[in-house]
Amino acid sequence: MIRTLVVGFGQVAANFVVGLERLKSGELEPYGVPLAGYDFGVGVDEVEIVGAIDVDERKVGRDLASIVEGFYGFKNPPRALREVYIYRGLGGEWVKNIFPVRSEEWGESLARVEDLFSELRPDVVLDVTTTQSAPAFSSREELEKAVASGSAAPSQVYAYLALKASKRIGSLVYVNLNPTPVANAPAILELAEQCGCIVLGDDGATGATPLTADLLEHLRERNRRVYSIAQFNIGGNTDFLSLTDEKRSRAKEDTKSSIVKDILGYDAPHYIKPTGYLEPLGDKKFVAMHIWWESFNGAVDELVVIMRINDSPALAGLMVDLARIGWWLKSRGVKGTVYEVNAFYMKKPAPPGSRNVSRYRAYELLKEYLGVK
Amino acid sequence: MIRTLVVGFGQVAANFVVGLERLKSGELEPYGVPLAGYDFGVGVDEVEIVGAIDVDERKVGRDLASIVEGFYGFKNPPRALREVYIYRGLGGEWVKNIFPVRSEEWGESLARVEDLFSELRPDVVLDVTTTQSAPAFSSREELEKAVASGSAAPSQVYAYLALKASKRIGSLVYVNLNPTPVANAPAILELAEQCGCIVLGDDGATGATPLTADLLEHLRERNRRVYSIAQFNIGGNTDFLSLTDEKRSRAKEDTKSSIVKDILGYDAPHYIKPTGYLEPLGDKKFVAMHIWWESFNGAVDELVVIMRINDSPALAGLMVDLARIGWWLKSRGVKGTVYEVNAFYMKKPAPPGSRNVSRYRAYELLKEYLGVK
Amino acid sequence: MIRTLVVGFGQVAANFVVGLERLKSGELEPYGVPLAGYDFGVGVDEVEIVGAIDVDERKVGRDLASIVEGFYGFKNPPRALREVYIYRGLGGEWVKNIFPVRSEEWGESLARVEDLFSELRPDVVLDVTTTQSAPAFSSREELEKAVASGSAAPSQVYAYLALKASKRIGSLVYVNLNPTPVANAPAILELAEQCGCIVLGDDGATGATPLTADLLEHLRERNRRVYSIAQFNIGGNTDFLSLTDEKRSRAKEDTKSSIVKDILGYDAPHYIKPTGYLEPLGDKKFVAMHIWWESFNGAVDELVVIMRINDSPALAGLMVDLARIGWWLKSRGVKGTVYEVNAFYMKKPAPPGSRNVSRYRAYELLKEYLGVK
Amino acid sequence: MIRTLVVGFGQVAANFVVGLERLKSGELEPYGVPLAGYDFGVGVDEVEIVGAIDVDERKVGRDLASIVEGFYGFKNPPRALREVYIYRGLGGEWVKNIFPVRSEEWGESLARVEDLFSELRPDVVLDVTTTQSAPAFSSREELEKAVASGSAAPSQVYAYLALKASKRIGSLVYVNLNPTPVANAPAILELAEQCGCIVLGDDGATGATPLTADLLEHLRERNRRVYSIAQFNIGGNTDFLSLTDEKRSRAKEDTKSSIVKDILGYDAPHYIKPTGYLEPLGDKKFVAMHIWWESFNGAVDELVVIMRINDSPALAGLMVDLARIGWWLKSRGVKGTVYEVNAFYMKKPAPPGSRNVSRYRAYELLKEYLGVK
Ligand SMILES: NC(=O)c1ccc[n+]([C@@H]2O[C@H](COP(=O)([O-])OP(=O)(O)OC[C@H]3O[C@@H](n4cnc5c(N)ncnc54)[C@H](O)[C@@H]3O)[C@@H](O)[C@H]2O)c1
Ligand SMILES: NC(=O)c1ccc[n+]([C@@H]2O[C@H](COP(=O)([O-])OP(=O)(O)OC[C@H]3O[C@@H](n4cnc5c(N)ncnc54)[C@H](O)[C@@H]3O)[C@@H](O)[C@H]2O)c1
Ligand SMILES: NC(=O)c1ccc[n+]([C@@H]2O[C@H](COP(=O)([O-])OP(=O)(O)OC[C@H]3O[C@@H](n4cnc5c(N)ncnc54)[C@H](O)[C@@H]3O)[C@@H](O)[C@H]2O)c1
Ligand SMILES: NC(=O)c1ccc[n+]([C@@H]2O[C@H](COP(=O)([O-])OP(=O)(O)OC[C@H]3O[C@@H](n4cnc5c(N)ncnc54)[C@H](O)[C@@H]3O)[C@@H](O)[C@H]2O)c1
Ligand SMILES: [Mg+2]
Ligand SMILES: [Mg+2]
Ligand SMILES: [Mg+2]
Ligand SMILES: [Mg+2]
Repeated sequence: MIRTLVVGFGQVAANFVVGLERLKSGELEPYGVPLAGYDFGVGVDEVEIVGAIDVDERKVGRDLASIVEGFYGFKNPPRALREVYIYRGLGGEWVKNIFPVRSEEWGESLARVEDLFSELRPDVVLDVTTTQSAPAFSSREELEKAVASGSAAPSQVYAYLALKASKRIGSLVYVNLNPTPVANAPAILELAEQCGCIVLGDDGATGATPLTADLLEHLRERNRRVYSIAQFNIGGNTDFLSLTDEKRSRAKEDTKSSIVKDILGYDAPHYIKPTGYLEPLGDKKFVAMHIWWESFNGAVDELVVIMRINDSPALAGLMVDLARIGWWLKSRGVKGTVYEVNAFYMKKPAPPGSRNVSRYRAYELLKEYLGVK
Repeated sequence: MIRTLVVGFGQVAANFVVGLERLKSGELEPYGVPLAGYDFGVGVDEVEIVGAIDVDERKVGRDLASIVEGFYGFKNPPRALREVYIYRGLGGEWVKNIFPVRSEEWGESLARVEDLFSELRPDVVLDVTTTQSAPAFSSREELEKAVASGSAAPSQVYAYLALKASKRIGSLVYVNLNPTPVANAPAILELAEQCGCIVLGDDGATGATPLTADLLEHLRERNRRVYSIAQFNIGGNTDFLSLTDEKRSRAKEDTKSSIVKDILGYDAPHYIKPTGYLEPLGDKKFVAMHIWWESFNGAVDELVVIMRINDSPALAGLMVDLARIGWWLKSRGVKGTVYEVNAFYMKKPAPPGSRNVSRYRAYELLKEYLGVK
Repeated sequence: MIRTLVVGFGQVAANFVVGLERLKSGELEPYGVPLAGYDFGVGVDEVEIVGAIDVDERKVGRDLASIVEGFYGFKNPPRALREVYIYRGLGGEWVKNIFPVRSEEWGESLARVEDLFSELRPDVVLDVTTTQSAPAFSSREELEKAVASGSAAPSQVYAYLALKASKRIGSLVYVNLNPTPVANAPAILELAEQCGCIVLGDDGATGATPLTADLLEHLRERNRRVYSIAQFNIGGNTDFLSLTDEKRSRAKEDTKSSIVKDILGYDAPHYIKPTGYLEPLGDKKFVAMHIWWESFNGAVDELVVIMRINDSPALAGLMVDLARIGWWLKSRGVKGTVYEVNAFYMKKPAPPGSRNVSRYRAYELLKEYLGVK
Repeated sequence: MIRTLVVGFGQVAANFVVGLERLKSGELEPYGVPLAGYDFGVGVDEVEIVGAIDVDERKVGRDLASIVEGFYGFKNPPRALREVYIYRGLGGEWVKNIFPVRSEEWGESLARVEDLFSELRPDVVLDVTTTQSAPAFSSREELEKAVASGSAAPSQVYAYLALKASKRIGSLVYVNLNPTPVANAPAILELAEQCGCIVLGDDGATGATPLTADLLEHLRERNRRVYSIAQFNIGGNTDFLSLTDEKRSRAKEDTKSSIVKDILGYDAPHYIKPTGYLEPLGDKKFVAMHIWWESFNGAVDELVVIMRINDSPALAGLMVDLARIGWWLKSRGVKGTVYEVNAFYMKKPAPPGSRNVSRYRAYELLKEYLGVK
């Protein structure tokens, strides 16, 4: 059994737990789970949800079944979710403009959450909390000061506390799926190495970005000269709502834009942003992208991509793989981070300074690393 | 010097010769030439056009410069093109509804064109004649009977005669870029092996098809279940005009559709066709594509791709590589056909029975084969 | 009560009867019913379905509720539909390649259906049978000969028989919503005048065509010069399946294309067709359209329209209006046809020879005619 | 002769003067001039450019021919433009972050520009300066204070000074084509009435907004319920560059958004913004729009509109009409503003408080007002 803990029980997490249980009961085909067709020795049914952490007062203390039904409209939620609970997290003030949260003395929060990790004994922690912006702490001192003072982003604090708890409960894997620098924070990576843990991240690679990566690779392989790239994203879930905040949006923009130069080899002018919040669109965002380029003999071509895509299930599908891969890494005694895994699943693959490669290339690397074909 | 002969001097050929000369004179960046940035020992300036073959009476006997200017509007055509000429080909009756052609006794045609190959002594023949539909002859007898009687498609006849001429003029490379089965005709391949020649083909991989291949690969790698694929193409050049003929269109449809099952692994319902002719669009075709699929937890996503692309320059860019690669193969004494080359440059890669792989994969195979990275 | 009879109980009809009953019971807002917000004296609740006619053996003799549930997936169909039945029609052989039909001696068919009209005593007949291609009979003799011999299209025969029956049952309104020339057949119009009946048609104006009309009007009002128009349609309902037949498709293409010249004032090159059948798309078709033009000072602009639209409910919504308007016309003693109604609701507005105007203009005409604003 | 003065000699103005002269010399068809095909008694060749005003130091003092060639790449500019000059305007500090401008004492500026109007004696002033944000001054006192202190936006100051100069030079027409409230400022309108002048505005109706208006009208006429509207705009001209400034962008957003409620009758959730600046796109902006709605019987449809349009020529084409209409109004002694003209040509039609109607409706109103058909 892979004891799996979810941090941030929002739309992504809800899709993850519902989809996972429906997969385990055979109700659902494993569409959207990239490695579903490959056997690397860890099955989907080994993944077990042991709990979730959140700061939204409407969610804390309740069971997952009631939340996925009440908040996310999943009728007849899988029974297994009735016995898994949401525990109180920390750092609620970072999202107090979006969700109803409760205040607590910071020192108490830290102690309480560290204990929580010790009690829940996760093998894998999947962090899908709201995007926050914070520096990628380089030194252990800086990080610890920021954790103590409350200026580190919640995801960084959770990762820090989980790694700390690992001394008591054994090695674990922390997977950060939001844009906050966790696996890309040198101080956190160093800590992971020291305690024999693994940190994967950052920012789950779903939505338009991975497709853009592959489109750019397609153009590069034909040596076409890209004139410019414009990409708009608009959605109506609380993730988009949170990104109307300038600072959070900047964090996201950074992980999205880095692909252009990494893949093309030159920094083609681009505008790639989470652009707006429009409530009726819900979780199915609208994406429009324009790319144009020069081809042979001076010809100029144009490409427009339009998508209407369900944001959260896409990431949830990746989480099924990441829990399994996390376990695979842990059982092999890997520590630190693993580029070959991050390169496929993450928009900003750790370790810091790594290049984005096309998803095609990343997929090859991943399969090779896991020894499947 | 790579003595290069072009068969079918239409829009693709015009872009090829103009672009090539502009590249050689340093006027143009090699955008749209896939391997421009890789050194496999054969430079662009080694490619020399020694002649062209056509059946359009308005073109036969004239120099390339006058045609690219008069027919295709290239102002100030490169001087080098003034001294290269268009020779009379064979099989004009296959296109008599589109172009003004002249009749000739068939036996005379065969003899004349065979002599033409002997005189022009090409290293590489690039066939960009109008699409024709004919069987993929399996046995030598069948093929020779069809050549003799005039029922083989012109591209097949040209390939046959070129291979025959190779006995006098030495090994050559025949590259077929239209959908007619040439490299996919077992009888022609066998002949090539016997005379130490190389045949590459069929149907140059430009336009929407290679992109579709890579989009499907992208979906497959995430294990998404494709519900259906609709792809429309409409353009205003004589290539599209020729495809309003049902039989020719069928030939094209076949090479386009084979990617679906080859890449996805199942035959997702699809409608992929050269759909229509609309004169004002000229050589810059309009493409619209709709793909939708099931992702994780039952979510259904949609993707629309819109393109406005210059058909002919795209293929012309590939021809610059193919002439160079042809020479590279010839100088290494390769014979028959080469899947690793066809897989990237062709919609229906020979040898017959080969699978289409994603263009990403094909690109890796190609670079590995040529020993570049 | 407006006694309403539906001829052809397929996807459009199913949406019509379900939507109508849900409207009458207050379950549904009248979205998609153009005149819902205007009071011209005839309410939606006055429309009463008295029966339907079809030739599909799986449908004949059954009640509407069972068909809308079993064939079209409407759960809990309105109770009122349980007591309305489907009667056997005529001309099944026209669709025997698509639906299971039964043969009958033609003379018997004619007699039986005429009686059916007499028994059901409709005020309004709404014809939504499968598209058929036939001439727009000019003379009474021709028409009667074609009816007698079975060479007139079923819709023409139904209209003829209904008008004939009107002598016994009083004036009625025949609304033809498929592309077959009924209201555009001079012989049928003449008959209508003589018996004091009304014929409206042809081809319900839904889908991409009315929008195209209005886009062209938009361009015309700015005096932009349209270079070309390409429009593709693909869907997966039996209506699209039936259009894979070349002759039927031609009929549809004609009613679609006539708008270009009518609205722009010149025949801009265009390709506007029901293009293909792709089963998974179901009733929600995919449409892609490309228009480009010259604007001021030689500038060239481009517009692409992409739609994913539910074909059948759109037409069903118009039928709610047409039943009411039919009654309004009948009670005013109007006879023949009414351009002001057809111009808005039909792709090929009768009387024959009429011009298509933009839908905006048509909407004004319609409101003026009905005296609403 | 209609003495026409252009204020703000940027991309729009350049297209206007070049296009106008090419029209007058018969070199160009009047595409993009809405009323080109209607005769209301004022011909295109009556429009004469008497000068232009700008604050960009690189432009001031030079002739129009040199600017349209040097800045906007029009080869062989019409000779007539060699003898028309650019005069120094006022308020350069509002755009000092975008263009090189010079400072001057404010009182001097006011006096100088008032004299300029007196000398140039325009019949029509066309204001196409950079968008600025300022209040819609209600009282004469407020306005005059703001003009004196320099806190009124340049367009407001120009309008004020022109109206003042009219006492010396006779009635004139001030046409404001940017989003700054000029015709929508009650104080300016009042002044116009008093001095027998005309003010038209605000914000020229080109780009995606008028098309959106007409699409919404199309939906409304079918009583479809719009769920949401998302519209993105991105371009690479200095107009877009100027809109990266939050305040200017807000001004534009307001004039764009007002159409939703005005036309639909309810405020459907929307996101309609000039979104970004991307230099390589130049004057040909990229627009993507998503609209979805509920149709009959609960069906949900989707529409995507993609445009690649030349922003400036579109507005320039309207200016040809506005100069002629201005003269027509002046010769009839009209004063104040004219809704029937603004409703078609402006995004925010004056007088203040007016409703946006669909462009179709506006076009009818316009033609009726001018007595053409
Ligand atoms: N495809 C995708 O949806 C996608 C892709 C990449 C990254 N992400 C990232 O995943 C994250 C989750 O997305 P979502 O759509 O589920 O968002 P959501 O708004 O639905 O859920 C976020 C949840 O995190 C909780 N939360 C916020 N701060 C917390 C804290 N300090 N401690 C514990 N819980 C906290 C919130 O209460 C909420 O329940 C976001 O950061 C998003 O950027 C999503
Ligand atoms: N991107 C692309 O444009 C693309 C991609 C794949 C394949 N192709 C294929 O390339 C071919 C050429 O395309 P194009 O756009 O240049 O077409 P084109 O119509 O402009 O030119 C074809 C030329 O071939 C000549 N021709 C016809 N029959 C001949 C014969 N029997 N012998 C000699 N010449 C003959 C014609 O006279 C004409 O000059 C087509 O078959 C097309 O299907 C093109
Ligand atoms: N928006 C739209 O869907 C739209 C718009 C314009 C016109 N139309 C026209 O409306 C018609 C109906 O469309 P649909 O989607 O419901 O198609 P459908 O295939 O679902 O239904 C057609 C029905 O007509 C029946 N039919 C065929 N021949 C008949 C005959 N001779 N007598 C009686 N019944 C017969 C068939 O059995 C079937 O039940 C088509 O002709 C279509 O072209 C539809
Ligand atoms: N289709 C369209 O392009 C369109 C549509 C509606 C409105 N507009 C408006 O038209 C205006 C012009 O657009 P453009 O594309 O020509 O922009 P532009 O940036 O090319 O030109 C603006 C010109 O105005 C000048 N200017 C700025 N402040 C001035 C001042 N105080 N006095 C005199 N001149 C001044 C600048 O120096 C520049 O030459 C903008 O306000 C834009 O919002 C344009
Ligand atoms: Mg999300
Ligand atoms: Mg071509
Ligand atoms: Mg239908
Ligand atoms: Mg502009």
